[in-house]
Amino acid sequence: MSPKFVRKSIREMSGYEPGEQPAAGTRWVKLNTNENPFPPSEKVMRAIRDLPAESLRRYPPPLADAFRAAAGRMLRIGPEWIIAGNGSDDILTIATRTFVPPGGTLAFPSPTYSLYPVLARLEDAKSLAIPWEKDWSLPVAALAASGAEAIYLANPNAPSGTFVAPAKVAELAGAFSGLLLIDEAYADFAEGNCLALVTRFANVVIVRTLSKAYSLAGLRFGYGVAKPDVIAEMMKVKDSYNCDAVSIAAATAAIEDQDHARQGWEHVRSERRRVSQELTRLGWNVIPSQANFIFATPPLGDGKGVYRALKEKGILVRHFDLPDLSRSVRITIGTVEDNNALLAAVGRLQE
Amino acid sequence: MSPKFVRKSIREMSGYEPGEQPAAGTRWVKLNTNENPFPPSEKVMRAIRDLPAESLRRYPPPLADAFRAAAGRMLRIGPEWIIAGNGSDDILTIATRTFVPPGGTLAFPSPTYSLYPVLARLEDAKSLAIPWEKDWSLPVAALAASGAEAIYLANPNAPSGTFVAPAKVAELAGAFSGLLLIDEAYADFAEGNCLALVTRFANVVIVRTLSKAYSLAGLRFGYGVAKPDVIAEMMKVKDSYNCDAVSIAAATAAIEDQDHARQGWEHVRSERRRVSQELTRLGWNVIPSQANFIFATPPLGDGKGVYRALKEKGILVRHFDLPDLSRSVRITIGTVEDNNALLAAVGRLQE
Repeated sequence: MSPKFVRKSIREMSGYEPGEQPAAGTRWVKLNTNENPFPPSEKVMRAIRDLPAESLRRYPPPLADAFRAAAGRMLRIGPEWIIAGNGSDDILTIATRTFVPPGGTLAFPSPTYSLYPVLARLEDAKSLAIPWEKDWSLPVAALAASGAEAIYLANPNAPSGTFVAPAKVAELAGAFSGLLLIDEAYADFAEGNCLALVTRFANVVIVRTLSKAYSLAGLRFGYGVAKPDVIAEMMKVKDSYNCDAVSIAAATAAIEDQDHARQGWEHVRSERRRVSQELTRLGWNVIPSQANFIFATPPLGDGKGVYRALKEKGILVRHFDLPDLSRSVRITIGTVEDNNALLAAVGRLQE
Repeated sequence: MSPKFVRKSIREMSGYEPGEQPAAGTRWVKLNTNENPFPPSEKVMRAIRDLPAESLRRYPPPLADAFRAAAGRMLRIGPEWIIAGNGSDDILTIATRTFVPPGGTLAFPSPTYSLYPVLARLEDAKSLAIPWEKDWSLPVAALAASGAEAIYLANPNAPSGTFVAPAKVAELAGAFSGLLLIDEAYADFAEGNCLALVTRFANVVIVRTLSKAYSLAGLRFGYGVAKPDVIAEMMKVKDSYNCDAVSIAAATAAIEDQDHARQGWEHVRSERRRVSQELTRLGWNVIPSQANFIFATPPLGDGKGVYRALKEKGILVRHFDLPDLSRSVRITIGTVEDNNALLAAVGRLQE
């Protein structure tokens, strides 16, 4: 029984359900939450080890200046175009509170990242899930006519891994008068991204994370990119000190070591191709992916059964128990060894 | 000009204004944002240095299990009574979103921590500031009759440093049917705390931070304590991974090294006594403080002038440009050397 002094909408909701996180040290082939298969740059580890105690004793720079400067250099924009956050979930929370009023509407093509409706609910706002068109094309007209205050577009999308070309996203940005947030958590694994849209359209916010592309899921660091007057509004909403001194130093080191990160992205792309081909050969239906995971349907469409059978063999993939998704599983691209273990296990299951 | 797709209440508000944070490496006697004068425990630094890269690559434990277990041992309660947050500001944000609906009311004795009305505003809720009684006594009847969904009580209070005895807070908890949040950011420097009230009253949440008492303002770690069914509701509202792997390891090490922390608290209490006496001797009116700062009025009541004059001498204290507070300054208790520098500068100002 929820206490009566809890907000009605909170009492009545369930929270967001993150993927399983087995305890550190346990032996799993963990392909369920889209972590990068490689460790972060050695320069990140050094930045953490070298942090002086004084940086912990004192409050951190409230705007994460060092990170904004480094990210600005990489993206070739000024730091005033960037807001740093405690993971991209923090940026998504900040955005929802900045752009979606209580009683308002948040729209998104569906299925997508299952956090979006939770964020709307927390804001006492409505969710408007607009189905993807055939072959995961963007339903531009329906979204533009949604009347929503904001549209959230994961691109590449999760869990499908599909990618909408920037020209198509630009169509939507131009046709929609609300805020268009483009969640680029997986963009570094794709063939393109929508960064250029923030200079063309006043109503576009790009969201990125260091969790996947920089192997820093444990660090919690993400950022948003938008015109400075939009960033200024989001700054009012964030917690004053939302990023800590350690993560600012580590994230800055990470984004300055592009060579290290790129090697990982190349590996993921090449292994994504190989795993997709092998599963297709085994009779699976694999949606062409631009992310660091694939969404694939086993020959008998028994997504849950395959998830369970793999788990018994020590391999974790993600299964979504939802009408549109339950026939498939989402598989993170891992190391060559992880992927071989997955493919071998799938082969044995189907013998 | 704020973009029109920004929520009206956000467009029309100013954000919370944190205290000045001069860049690291600059030479200030920094007594303006209530940091602990001593570095964190060496065990904290070791926990950070020893963190394996694998802990960064993977998502962190979403509930910060290690910290909850350690804090539970210290407080002699089960981990299910605890929620961990990215600083106590995160816990305050989570609480506001859990207990205060849009259109609702958040009440607090005033003046107090200036973040509270900002949190209400972000929720499209009303703030109800109820003046402290004479001598900073708790206005129990007025608060209990406020009709608010929640009351936030900073105890010790900021910026006054005053402390309400737990028996008096219990009166309020019993007389109020909404949620009573007790913000104990400074409680470790006081002669008591209200932790026992969470077992007596279902509607009490205690909030603590490691920023001040454990010298970890730069780390961003705080926690809330309440009955498990209340904690469960707050868990729905928090970001899934609101605490990172580094800060979980560091905060756990910090709370397990009570000896180190206690030495700092003792120092603060003894220096607080000395600085209060010396300023009183110099003609200041010093409110008796139970926190790691004092709120004091110089002989001429020229709070802003004294703030500016001290700043010119390289000493930062906090001045609040508000009707009730502008005659005074808030001074963090620092090291013996910091405090001597302050007292000498004040002495010279008044020569």
